[in-house]
This record gives sequence, C-alpha cells and structure tokens, in this order.
Amino acid sequence: MNLTILGCYAATPRTFTNPTAQVLDIKNRLFLIDCGEGTQVQLRKNKIKFSKINHIFISHLHGDHCYGLIGLISTFMLLNRTTDLHIYGPKGIKELVTVQLRLSHSWSSYGLFFHELEATTSQIIYEDEKVLVATIPLKHRIYTNGFLFKEKRNERKLHLEAVQKWGIDTCFYQNIKNGKDIILDDGTFLPNSTLTFDPDPPKSYAFCSDTMFHESIIPLIEGASVLYHEATFLESEHEKAQKTMHATAIQAATIASKAGVGKLILGHFSTRYENIDLFKQEAETVFSNVETADDGKIFEF
Amino acid sequence: MNLTILGCYAATPRTFTNPTAQVLDIKNRLFLIDCGEGTQVQLRKNKIKFSKINHIFISHLHGDHCYGLIGLISTFMLLNRTTDLHIYGPKGIKELVTVQLRLSHSWSSYGLFFHELEATTSQIIYEDEKVLVATIPLKHRIYTNGFLFKEKRNERKLHLEAVQKWGIDTCFYQNIKNGKDIILDDGTFLPNSTLTFDPDPPKSYAFCSDTMFHESIIPLIEGASVLYHEATFLESEHEKAQKTMHATAIQAATIASKAGVGKLILGHFSTRYENIDLFKQEAETVFSNVETADDGKIFEF
Repeated sequence: MNLTILGCYAATPRTFTNPTAQVLDIKNRLFLIDCGEGTQVQLRKNKIKFSKINHIFISHLHGDHCYGLIGLISTFMLLNRTTDLHIYGPKGIKELVTVQLRLSHSWSSYGLFFHELEATTSQIIYEDEKVLVATIPLKHRIYTNGFLFKEKRNERKLHLEAVQKWGIDTCFYQNIKNGKDIILDDGTFLPNSTLTFDPDPPKSYAFCSDTMFHESIIPLIEGASVLYHEATFLESEHEKAQKTMHATAIQAATIASKAGVGKLILGHFSTRYENIDLFKQEAETVFSNVETADDGKIFEF
Repeated sequence: MNLTILGCYAATPRTFTNPTAQVLDIKNRLFLIDCGEGTQVQLRKNKIKFSKINHIFISHLHGDHCYGLIGLISTFMLLNRTTDLHIYGPKGIKELVTVQLRLSHSWSSYGLFFHELEATTSQIIYEDEKVLVATIPLKHRIYTNGFLFKEKRNERKLHLEAVQKWGIDTCFYQNIKNGKDIILDDGTFLPNSTLTFDPDPPKSYAFCSDTMFHESIIPLIEGASVLYHEATFLESEHEKAQKTMHATAIQAATIASKAGVGKLILGHFSTRYENIDLFKQEAETVFSNVETADDGKIFEF
C-alpha cells in the first residue's frame, strides 16, 4: 500500500502548494481521494497513469477539495477514455459535474457513475474481493465524509518446505492458502496450520479531512495502520480552528492516540505557516509516530 | 497597453503548459480574458494583483477557457474582497458559477455581476471614459465571442512651449487638451491647433479564440493594433482544424492580412506540437508581423 500526496494545503492553490488530492495504491487499485484545482497537473507531475484511476472519493464540496474534478473528467474525455469512472461524494456532486458538462456541450465517452452520499453514520461504499471502503462521518461546516480503506483478511502464507515435503501438487496450493486441510492419498490428515503461516494482518488507511476535533470517529478508525488527519492550524490558532471547524496538530494527535493507529500523517496546512515542522513538533507531544504530508511525497506502508 | 499571456495552449492543462487566460492592461484597467484551470496560480506566478481585476471576459464555456473561474471567484472571497466583480460571458455562465457556490455553501463578500451574452452580432458590452469593449462573434462548436478592446480617442497633447509663451494658467490645460480654443484677456484668439499636437492614435486589441476561419470578423477587427488569433493547428492538420472548428496558423494570418492589423499574435496551440516556431513560419508566408504567444510572455504595444 502506498500513498502519494498530490496536494495537502488548505484553501487556495498557490505557486508552490496545492489543495487536497492524494492517490492511494491499495492491492493494485488506484483510488483518488479529493480533487482540488490543478489535480490533473499534479497527477502528470507525479507520473500517475490517468487510465488506472477508476474510483474517485470526494470528502466534501468545498472548492479546495473538488474544483479539479470537472477538469479531470473532461481530460479523460479528451483522452478517449472508455472505462467506467465511479465518483463517490456528497449529494450534489452529480449536479456539480453534470451542469458543467451540459453547459460546455460535452459528451461522455465513458460511463460516469455517481454514488451520492447523505448518510450520517458510516457505510460501506465500495467492496471487492480484496478491499473495502467505508465512510467516516466528519464534523465540518458542510456535510463531509472521511474514508477508511481496508484490505480484507489476507490469505494464509504457504509453508513451502512443508507442502513440498509431503509432495502436495501445486494445484492444491490456493485451497491451502484459503485455509483448507489436506488428506493425502494414503489417508494422512494434514491440518492447515502445519502447511501455512498466519497471513500478514490486513492494513488500513483512514483519510480524515476536513474536520474539527471529533471523538465519534475513534471507534471507526481504531487500530488503522495509518491515519491522515487534517491539522489546518497550530495550537496558537486553537480558537480559529474551533470557529472554522478545523483541527490543530495536537487535536489530530489526540485522535491518533485514542484510536491507537500505527502512524499519523498531518496535512491540510494553512498557507499562513512557513515552517511545517512545527506541526510535527506539536503533535509529537501527544503521539509518537507522526509525519507531515507534502506535495509530491510518497508514503509506503 | 500590455498583454500578459497566462496560458495559450489548447485542451488540457499540462505540467508546463496552461489553458487559455490572459490579462490586458489598457489605460490602467486590468481585464482578465478567459480563465482556464490554474489561472489563479498563473496570476500569482506573474505577480498580477488579484485586487486589480474587476472585469473578466469569458469567450465560451469549453473547460479550457473557464474551469479556473470558480476557483478564482472563491479565492477572491477567501481574500475578503469587497470590490464588485463583473463577469461577461455566454448565457449559462451565471448558472455555472452559482450552482458551485450554492453546493459549497459559499457566500459572496463582494458584488458578483454577470453579463450574459447571447447576441450573434457585435455589441458593446463595456464602456467607460477611456475604453470600450465590443464582442466579436466567432464560429466554433459552441456559442463563442472574441472581444475587441479599444482605447477611446486620446486627448490632444499640450504644446507646452506655446501655452507657456502665452502665459496661460495651468487650470486651462485640461480644456485645451480636450480641444478648446483660448481667448486671452486682451482678446487674442488662439485656435486649439496652435496650442496642441495631434493625439496618439487610439490603440486596440482583438482577442479571437476559439474560432474556425471566419471572414465575417474582418470588418469588426479592421485596423486593430494587435490581433490574437487562435492557431490550434499547423497546415498539415488543416482538415482536423476544419472538423473541430479551429484555425490553422495560415488561416489566422489570412485574417490578419485581410483586416490590416498591426501585429498578429498566435496562440491556443495544440499540445501535440513541440516546435511552436513552425506556427510563426507558416503564418509569415501570408503576413509579416507575427509573434507566437507563450505562457508568461508579456507583449507591450
């Protein structure tokens, strides 16, 4: 699983900073999360193949999280895309896109599917054989969801020495990895535990932006491998964070600590700050494994 | 008068090229013409003050000419703008903007005035004491206008030696520049022509993008100081230009020549071409004073 940050700054795109967008590569699925203005250029700069993006998750309809969506959709058309594109976001996102397509007399060369969200409790919005995605209802000035991306339980790992010792045919390997026991032709019973090792624990990534400090999310993200939590402000702007329904670095770290996540990535920094390292310093007073996002940075986990 | 090219490439924003946007500085008025995705960042890069832009002219509603508008409008809000903003563009542009503001629960801290266009003949859409702006109906796949920006007749230039020789009080200077004759206290009649020189001829700038070769625009842009005409394709893609209702460099030059403009600037290049100089070479076979646009280039005239 790896995460490429395309943009992690609040409010307006600037010469050297971009609004929110990131790409999660999980089990070879490429999920685009949020799509601020300029995201398509950031995708190009980071050499991410447009054709591999089939699912886009939009947290909320503030411009710094979605104004790049229509441009990306249009570019997909110009590139003669034919694969379906699925967009998950707040109710209204379909109107946002279709009004612009209608006014520009644009056609869609590919299937464009909108999955509009309005629930205020967590729901599973995507699922396949290896991955599922659930919403994390957040608390912001406007209806907002974070997203939890979870690997499903991985298959057991083959104990290669053991299966070879018993001369088991390779055609049984997948069944064994799926947990099946084996009975040899001579009647010998081999319990699965002697032929496999425990699988790697499934990893998960929780994206939580934008939101104020909101403890209700803790049970939803409990034990996540990695949490990206917005930290628009430093503690000195605590009141401003409260008023604008954003979080401080210390609040993000408090959530990370209470949820017992593996790692905290801070992002959505206000462009008023020049020294982003202060966010890490403040968060580390509460939680130890903290990193700061930056445009173009790749996290592997 | 000077023109800053913020973006002059067709279709999609790329790592090093931007879709259409330019700023015309005419008689100290700053007019933004078209607003493709990323325009606000291009304004920053080119150090153009956001607060000086009060009028935005949008040629048509294809994304590469307007997808940066909502972001710029939102950024003006975040910057606590209070000055009125006027937007001139095709019918539908108000819906395009207001739907997005409504869905993002955004408010406007300033007056936002839409001047929607649907006429198919040229009309004056802006006028003040020094400048006027008229539409240039173009021929494209969608309703499109170019824009003619014209200085009004300049005031006559004071013949400083003459007015000083006659001891005329400075409070009469403005009247003299406006063309008034003077009668001195002793009854001496001084015709204006002895106190002034002819004014500089008023300049004009014609922006024509996107359009196919369309001779009907010639009377409207006749004698313009500078013509910016789209040249999406080279002559080798003549048929593609026809089919997509765009122009070639030679077609742009033919319009420039027939309209007797002072200078032709070519732009809106397809990103398929690496050597933009070929556009100039082809156009120069028809018209002599040709320049090519480039993002960040400033033309003074």
